[in-house]
Amino acid sequence: MSAPQRYVLTFGCPDRTGIIARISGFLADHGGMIVEAAYHTDPDSSWFFTRQVVLAESLPFDVAGLHDRFGVVARELSAESSWQVFDTGERPRAVVLVSKAGHCLYDLLGRVASGELDVDIAAVISNHEALADITRAHGIPFHHVPFPAGDADGKAAAFAEVRKLVDEHDPHAIVLARFMQVLPAELCEAWAGRALNIHHSFLPSFIGAKPYHQAHVRGVKIVGATCHYVTADLDAGPIVEQDVIRVDHGDSVDDLVRKGRDIEKVTLARGLRWHLEGRVLVHGNRTVVF
Amino acid sequence: MSAPQRYVLTFGCPDRTGIIARISGFLADHGGMIVEAAYHTDPDSSWFFTRQVVLAESLPFDVAGLHDRFGVVARELSAESSWQVFDTGERPRAVVLVSKAGHCLYDLLGRVASGELDVDIAAVISNHEALADITRAHGIPFHHVPFPAGDADGKAAAFAEVRKLVDEHDPHAIVLARFMQVLPAELCEAWAGRALNIHHSFLPSFIGAKPYHQAHVRGVKIVGATCHYVTADLDAGPIVEQDVIRVDHGDSVDDLVRKGRDIEKVTLARGLRWHLEGRVLVHGNRTVVF
Amino acid sequence: MSAPQRYVLTFGCPDRTGIIARISGFLADHGGMIVEAAYHTDPDSSWFFTRQVVLAESLPFDVAGLHDRFGVVARELSAESSWQVFDTGERPRAVVLVSKAGHCLYDLLGRVASGELDVDIAAVISNHEALADITRAHGIPFHHVPFPAGDADGKAAAFAEVRKLVDEHDPHAIVLARFMQVLPAELCEAWAGRALNIHHSFLPSFIGAKPYHQAHVRGVKIVGATCHYVTADLDAGPIVEQDVIRVDHGDSVDDLVRKGRDIEKVTLARGLRWHLEGRVLVHGNRTVVF
Amino acid sequence: MSAPQRYVLTFGCPDRTGIIARISGFLADHGGMIVEAAYHTDPDSSWFFTRQVVLAESLPFDVAGLHDRFGVVARELSAESSWQVFDTGERPRAVVLVSKAGHCLYDLLGRVASGELDVDIAAVISNHEALADITRAHGIPFHHVPFPAGDADGKAAAFAEVRKLVDEHDPHAIVLARFMQVLPAELCEAWAGRALNIHHSFLPSFIGAKPYHQAHVRGVKIVGATCHYVTADLDAGPIVEQDVIRVDHGDSVDDLVRKGRDIEKVTLARGLRWHLEGRVLVHGNRTVVF
Repeated sequence: MSAPQRYVLTFGCPDRTGIIARISGFLADHGGMIVEAAYHTDPDSSWFFTRQVVLAESLPFDVAGLHDRFGVVARELSAESSWQVFDTGERPRAVVLVSKAGHCLYDLLGRVASGELDVDIAAVISNHEALADITRAHGIPFHHVPFPAGDADGKAAAFAEVRKLVDEHDPHAIVLARFMQVLPAELCEAWAGRALNIHHSFLPSFIGAKPYHQAHVRGVKIVGATCHYVTADLDAGPIVEQDVIRVDHGDSVDDLVRKGRDIEKVTLARGLRWHLEGRVLVHGNRTVVF
Repeated sequence: MSAPQRYVLTFGCPDRTGIIARISGFLADHGGMIVEAAYHTDPDSSWFFTRQVVLAESLPFDVAGLHDRFGVVARELSAESSWQVFDTGERPRAVVLVSKAGHCLYDLLGRVASGELDVDIAAVISNHEALADITRAHGIPFHHVPFPAGDADGKAAAFAEVRKLVDEHDPHAIVLARFMQVLPAELCEAWAGRALNIHHSFLPSFIGAKPYHQAHVRGVKIVGATCHYVTADLDAGPIVEQDVIRVDHGDSVDDLVRKGRDIEKVTLARGLRWHLEGRVLVHGNRTVVF
Repeated sequence: MSAPQRYVLTFGCPDRTGIIARISGFLADHGGMIVEAAYHTDPDSSWFFTRQVVLAESLPFDVAGLHDRFGVVARELSAESSWQVFDTGERPRAVVLVSKAGHCLYDLLGRVASGELDVDIAAVISNHEALADITRAHGIPFHHVPFPAGDADGKAAAFAEVRKLVDEHDPHAIVLARFMQVLPAELCEAWAGRALNIHHSFLPSFIGAKPYHQAHVRGVKIVGATCHYVTADLDAGPIVEQDVIRVDHGDSVDDLVRKGRDIEKVTLARGLRWHLEGRVLVHGNRTVVF
Repeated sequence: MSAPQRYVLTFGCPDRTGIIARISGFLADHGGMIVEAAYHTDPDSSWFFTRQVVLAESLPFDVAGLHDRFGVVARELSAESSWQVFDTGERPRAVVLVSKAGHCLYDLLGRVASGELDVDIAAVISNHEALADITRAHGIPFHHVPFPAGDADGKAAAFAEVRKLVDEHDPHAIVLARFMQVLPAELCEAWAGRALNIHHSFLPSFIGAKPYHQAHVRGVKIVGATCHYVTADLDAGPIVEQDVIRVDHGDSVDDLVRKGRDIEKVTLARGLRWHLEGRVLVHGNRTVVF
């Protein structure tokens, strides 16, 4: 039933002849059985990307051994720090930040509980208490960190507290599941490549506050949601996934909100799953999703 | 925030000249302020359908008074029993039947808890105990009714028990949220027009068991889900809603199951919402969804 | 095979009690058999909209007679100029403006030729000659009006020529099928509510030039197209229809262009069809599409 | 503007360790610059698939030389006949078979004329004359081969004539663009892997005649189209692409036909493009689409 243990390699380097041969040759030399392989070259930047999944039992070393040995290949190909290997045998950890709107949290909890999303939610942190009970009903610690409105020092202290609570889990993903507070630049920096936000519009349309209201005023016929990595530029980070749903003149703002939530939930869940499976490679402000 | 009280009229009758004038004239004569109105005529059967939503406070009588007075109009138009009025001030009740797979139940519970779906889930009934805890965490009674495999009498007794548990709530909807047991004909009859099933395929493709396996074998590029009223013919009842998701050659049966679940959830939730709002009018084996 | 002759009434007025009764009562009094009816009230502006389709043979007067008689009702309901009636027996006329990219024109010509789109294309006007042959092969006059780059007077003269060529057909629709020239304000004014543009992005994302390039740089996962009425504000007119298509990291700008074209074609064709059938009611900068 | 010349390798063999290393090693040894690479292993059949695209100028031999040299690798990997190489410098040829409905033909002709679809349409063959003029306006030979209804011998003779007309072009694709005649088994055999059909339903729903009528009777909420390879089993060949469009109770059969045509056109065009680009690898009754 459960998939066999695998090692996942994600890798980027300047493009040139022979990269695939070098990497697959390395794996073949050690008996590695590749069960998934994806490649992409970005012609604009001449950058090469790959993700390889190898059966753990086919290799004569563990994931640390693979890391050591593959490091030689990576240096040869000038990959510098743009590669990693991880072991699917280690269950990833996520911390979820929420505000009052619970639809994304309910959805994530349901997916974990029903075995659809393979992640340990180590903690849920919120500036409100509305979602404490459901979180704890799933056996997950809930932390309430109030964010005093209009009090810059208080907010900074709150973010420091959030950071402490998050960092003690060293999570693979920090999920802003409709958190509604703009992360300070130093947290964007500290969590770069790990913090995923769900924005309730089809970016770059309707950046910022109240996107469904903006969409209603503009009279669009489709609304969307965007899962992206958090960067210091609001709603401008690398996009992981987007999806949309059709609306019409009969839909009030409340209807847009309701229909949009269905899209927010699946878009965030897909983005998070792909992130955790090492399918998302960031390059500049764009992503490759294998 | 909450919508004002409204009366919803759903109505069908043989088509002829002047029906809209008669109904809207009746409402206007009593000062009724129509806030939603939809009409359809089926040219094949020459059958007329309408759904009207009227502000309660604009009428000088309550829903029972509206029913009495409108009955005269309905008889005039030969509508017989194919019409009803209900009051949005009365919160509808649903009973949910599930088996072991929890994704649809988690989804429904999350929607109710976050205020997206306006229904009282009066009870959850299951042939397994897997979903007891989450149900009770939401403050909803859970009933375990075992279905003995291969024991016709035992099954009949189990269905009798289910029927008793359901009927004592006189629910507006009986939701088969991946119940996996085929309802006997007498229950289909008793719950006609109230029992909604979610089938995990794009019907009429892949009727019956293991539709995702069937889809994988056939090599389809899209899978779907269908919300339909339960009838004595398996998976052949009137379709309320369908939706689909793209798959590809890289998707295993397990991937189809996982992707399909996202579609099952939204398709069931939309179908249930529309049913509860009186948007679904059944005519023969087809539905009008206003 | 062909649908019977019908009169189409589109109507908007301030909302109040009894509008539907008044309009449908008027039609019923004259024996009018309604075959399609749609209603909408915009709660923000308290504006009421309807579209009614009546069998011509069921009324004792022609469309001019209907217009005269219904005018009394319209005045009573303070509709002023926001209503019209037309006769489906009169085939509508369109003039199409194009530049070099032919995909939308090929699509429209194919739809007309295969009987999918019920319109006479009275003329095609272009600032290039690339599409002259295919236009004439369909038996449609083609006019080449050069637009001298960087010559404001020359452009003004060209637009004057275009206007003359268009206006002599008094068309129901002026279709900018990737015309690539910004209409001057006086043409936007003269053709208000009749000039439809297809913009090759999901507005309001990527307004202006080279939207597919902008989309590629931003790394979006979906691209779209928008059919809207032309107004003096570039790409900001009332939206009639939008559609989208999924793209991924493997798609170059050329791939986005190619995939986007499939969406441009159907979005423009749907918008044009709905416009010609009187399904699109404009109110402020939003549309009701019945 | 135009892409540089490339060689495309498509390849399938029993899965084992080291296949990617062997193939990419072969290419690297000769200096081959890979610009696209895709891999898939089917776990059910343990069959490995790949498609590689190499810059022609990076290799020291032409496509025949590549074929000869790679043949050694293919034999080593037990690929037998399940591989090929082709040169993007050779423009592929297609023959299109049509009946009376022209929408797919119009669409294909428009795509070729506007440079979207890189194929020479060598001939159009039809059992009616309706589409002769538009075909010839595009400078393409049109052959009228009448199919006498209810005359088995006459039909056999007609198919023999069609076969002769097709085979003299030795086309890379034989496109049944709503041809409406069931190919005899010997033609399915002769054109195996080259004959693409567009079926106007979401297979396996509504196999056979009048699928839109079947869909209307069943009351589905979505209709679709399927592009598949033609086999001796009617509408049961390997599926290349499917797409769908939403419909509702207001849609007559004619509306389903019209809406469905938009899906037929894009589904066929995508399937044909992928086929011509060597993206479709058939294995049993399923396809891998790279």
